Amino acid sequence: MLYELAGAGETRFSPNCWRSIYALHHKGLPFERSPILFGEKDRIAFSGQKLVPVLQDSGTVISDSLTIAEYLEKTYPDGPTLFGGNVGRAQARFINAWADKVQISAFRPLIVRDAYDHVDPTDQAYYRENRESRYGGTLEDMQTDRGTRVHEMRRLLEPVRTAVSRQGFLAGDAPAYADYTVFGSFMWAKSVSTFSLLESDDPVYAWRGRMLELFDGLGHETGYPVA
Amino acid sequence: MLYELAGAGETRFSPNCWRSIYALHHKGLPFERSPILFGEKDRIAFSGQKLVPVLQDSGTVISDSLTIAEYLEKTYPDGPTLFGGNVGRAQARFINAWADKVQISAFRPLIVRDAYDHVDPTDQAYYRENRESRYGGTLEDMQTDRGTRVHEMRRLLEPVRTAVSRQGFLAGDAPAYADYTVFGSFMWAKSVSTFSLLESDDPVYAWRGRMLELFDGLGHETGYPVA
Repeated sequence: MLYELAGAGETRFSPNCWRSIYALHHKGLPFERSPILFGEKDRIAFSGQKLVPVLQDSGTVISDSLTIAEYLEKTYPDGPTLFGGNVGRAQARFINAWADKVQISAFRPLIVRDAYDHVDPTDQAYYRENRESRYGGTLEDMQTDRGTRVHEMRRLLEPVRTAVSRQGFLAGDAPAYADYTVFGSFMWAKSVSTFSLLESDDPVYAWRGRMLELFDGLGHETGYPVA
Repeated sequence: MLYELAGAGETRFSPNCWRSIYALHHKGLPFERSPILFGEKDRIAFSGQKLVPVLQDSGTVISDSLTIAEYLEKTYPDGPTLFGGNVGRAQARFINAWADKVQISAFRPLIVRDAYDHVDPTDQAYYRENRESRYGGTLEDMQTDRGTRVHEMRRLLEPVRTAVSRQGFLAGDAPAYADYTVFGSFMWAKSVSTFSLLESDDPVYAWRGRMLELFDGLGHETGYPVA
């Protein structure tokens, strides 16, 4: 069972949860998804911490998306590899940290107000208060002028761009966890916003298109069409 | 033979050349180093391009530091691995691109004027004119206020910091090419400057210390002591 963050209705916008959803699909493991609202964090108290995703696999409970991926790789070595060995696993931590610190921070101000509209109504007051105190300004202010600021975000994607200009995926000819960790943020955006993050002639746009096709078009079928 | 950029006297400051020097040591391959001044680029005309490093290995000529590493991995598969397989090699391209686009750009304004003092006297006019027209302002202006701006560079190292806080090297328990590509910039700085890039309690400082010990202290013996 994967406990994941839930928005209003069918919306699932957490970038970290998307990483785990894709990692489980990659391993070919069937799994159920249990949606958790911001106001329902007591439902994952058994994990000993407060953040989703949480994976419960028989008697084992794992939190943190990267730790979940490492657990899946170790526990299900016969499925397709998520890391391609020890060096790949170590290097994936760099890419994961880049996604956490650089990419998510760059995406947030472009879509944070759009996301509010997809937060469950019972969570909206919490979401607004939490994000506004954590990042400063109103949700509306944060998203101001995004048509200009998007250029800076695109510039920060340069390491992704360089890599996927030479190869189909960050992990090479086929996708692996490095791809999912970066792609998770695109699923976050796609779940809540029609804002155009990428230009259509960007190699990152083409890579995202390949990612959206995986697992019977899981990405395509989620949220808004990409612009 | 490795053709590499030469500064005044024994100074070798090119970050890209340091990547290749470390990759060759990693593979345990003996090699000679041929220093090339900025004004001697005609000596690498045989490579069909104008940038060092250039590796000449029997009849094969390879330029570009990442291409050289990929060549070494393919040609000398029995030596210690530089990439740990296909996924690791693909992911190294991301880390290499990050080092090229983010790290080198962040280091340059902190040491570009110091480097001038270590450029061969016959190259100094070219170096000043080239850097000043490419990056804007005088060399002296670029390095102004570096005691303040160093904080931004340290912040940009966060993906390195996160990774080496959990493991000895970017490639895991032992160093590999991902480490050399990031470390090359520290060798560039160490070759020309006494400016303190890192605080001593930074996990990146400890990682750099481990890197400096490799190959009989090659890094320690080069340039200035790290501050």
